[in-house]
Amino acid sequence: MRYRNMSEFNLNILGCGSATPSLRHLPACQVVEYRGNLMMIDCGEGAQLSMRKAGLKFSRLNHIFISHLHGDHCLGLPGLLSTLALHQKGGTLTVHTFAEGAEMFSGIMDFFCRERSFDLQFNVIEPGKRQTVLDLPSLTVESFPLRHRVACAGFLFKEKPKMRHLKGDMARFYNVPVSQIKAIKEGADFVTPDGEVIANDRLTTPADRAASYAYCSDTVYDRSLADVVRGVDLLYHEATYADDCAQKARARFHSTASEAATVARDAGAGALLIGHFSNAYNDESRHLAEARAIFPDTLVAREGLRLEIPLKQL
Amino acid sequence: MRYRNMSEFNLNILGCGSATPSLRHLPACQVVEYRGNLMMIDCGEGAQLSMRKAGLKFSRLNHIFISHLHGDHCLGLPGLLSTLALHQKGGTLTVHTFAEGAEMFSGIMDFFCRERSFDLQFNVIEPGKRQTVLDLPSLTVESFPLRHRVACAGFLFKEKPKMRHLKGDMARFYNVPVSQIKAIKEGADFVTPDGEVIANDRLTTPADRAASYAYCSDTVYDRSLADVVRGVDLLYHEATYADDCAQKARARFHSTASEAATVARDAGAGALLIGHFSNAYNDESRHLAEARAIFPDTLVAREGLRLEIPLKQL
Repeated sequence: MRYRNMSEFNLNILGCGSATPSLRHLPACQVVEYRGNLMMIDCGEGAQLSMRKAGLKFSRLNHIFISHLHGDHCLGLPGLLSTLALHQKGGTLTVHTFAEGAEMFSGIMDFFCRERSFDLQFNVIEPGKRQTVLDLPSLTVESFPLRHRVACAGFLFKEKPKMRHLKGDMARFYNVPVSQIKAIKEGADFVTPDGEVIANDRLTTPADRAASYAYCSDTVYDRSLADVVRGVDLLYHEATYADDCAQKARARFHSTASEAATVARDAGAGALLIGHFSNAYNDESRHLAEARAIFPDTLVAREGLRLEIPLKQL
Repeated sequence: MRYRNMSEFNLNILGCGSATPSLRHLPACQVVEYRGNLMMIDCGEGAQLSMRKAGLKFSRLNHIFISHLHGDHCLGLPGLLSTLALHQKGGTLTVHTFAEGAEMFSGIMDFFCRERSFDLQFNVIEPGKRQTVLDLPSLTVESFPLRHRVACAGFLFKEKPKMRHLKGDMARFYNVPVSQIKAIKEGADFVTPDGEVIANDRLTTPADRAASYAYCSDTVYDRSLADVVRGVDLLYHEATYADDCAQKARARFHSTASEAATVARDAGAGALLIGHFSNAYNDESRHLAEARAIFPDTLVAREGLRLEIPLKQL
């Protein structure tokens, strides 16, 4: 079995704190790299500077997904968009957000940055509904509802099923015409001009596994989430609190690390990344210990972390 | 002559870059400390985090002055105000800005942070006019017009004339009644019950000098500014460019370091602090050399710099 280049699908954590920037964490922001394209999830204040620090190029950013309209998830947007315009970014940039977000940010941008070098589009996400918000040739992004104090969406990045790999030498041996190659990569057998059937597995090796990543923040513990993100390679689930604040978590529609781990376990996730940490903690050692007791393949987010999806190793 | 406690009037530089945050500079933000109260001038993205880093307490911040409505001077405001509310800041916070700024930011705050623990007030600055925007018992803040691409205001922080210092031993010797002390501190002689006139300078030592600070950013070189800021102890004047970009400076309504120094020299300023540096430079050595050739008492701003006003020494 061949291995694909693992670095074509990466996750960059730019901010994994909650509520306000602190000396330890920045507010929510992540950048998914997929085959050289950058897609941002949430855009807390400071996102643009974090992109620079991480060496992520503004010119490659074409999509921004906003989970919900709390300031710590989107107040970095006006500054980032203004900077993109000053940098003469071209093409289209699409912000995926709820209707009120589209209206608010479009108003802010018309005020602060009316002349833009790029085409700023808003793709309206409907709250409370699972839907495909982006459909690229080899990847889809779906939004799905999370249970928070306000309308909130999670995002599922899923590679499309991949084609089998053609064995070049065998294809040449059987004189497979170019017109047949797509069908063969999709699993068809090949019939030679004199009627001989060549079984597909003589001509191809299996397709790489399609990888996936799910972002669940902010949300109260919701057992039904496991179905939505079933089998995902990497699950980011908020873990604002540790067990000591379980009640506060419920009251504020946030989760504990144990609850995040329960979702990961029930979903059969490949790995769990916890984040969105409350400023009330001095470190996340409790969160990690409590999550690992339930789901051992748990990692703690931190600003600057870059992970390959699926993770090469834990 | 007695010396007042010099640390009662300080300037903190939180951001001295221009246009966008960079790896070297943050966008415009300063905090004036006056007798324990904090007043912010401009509020570029990241201002709230810089306050934390500088150890400046949110609870002491009661006034924010916005020079103009370019994003690099005010896009940190929504995040800062949201954080103040989350921190349960009490009292009143006044944002001094032009009418459109008041409307825009009040709309943003109603969207992101409708329930506030403090009273958010907007004090509308009229563009193109010199005016007192804040009148405290011992300090006034005036705004004055700057020449930029959009309406822009500079700010002059000026201590009110101070009272003379009473010599306690002499006051006791002459049995000066409490009711007379204010008049004597203001310069009056004292007449004893039997008609003897005690000259004021036997009872008092001279008042401390009233200190002042002027903020001029953003502005094209404007020779008439020297009159507005005449005799100021510390002048912050933008120096976006060095002489190599003098033409660009004029075209964009910015200044060079030499022009900033010319204003400082013509105004007879005590010292000049240059800032608002373009990201096109790797350091500000050219700016400094060119400014000092015209006005030797020039300093270069940098994030984290804290200066006493007037400067104790250069």
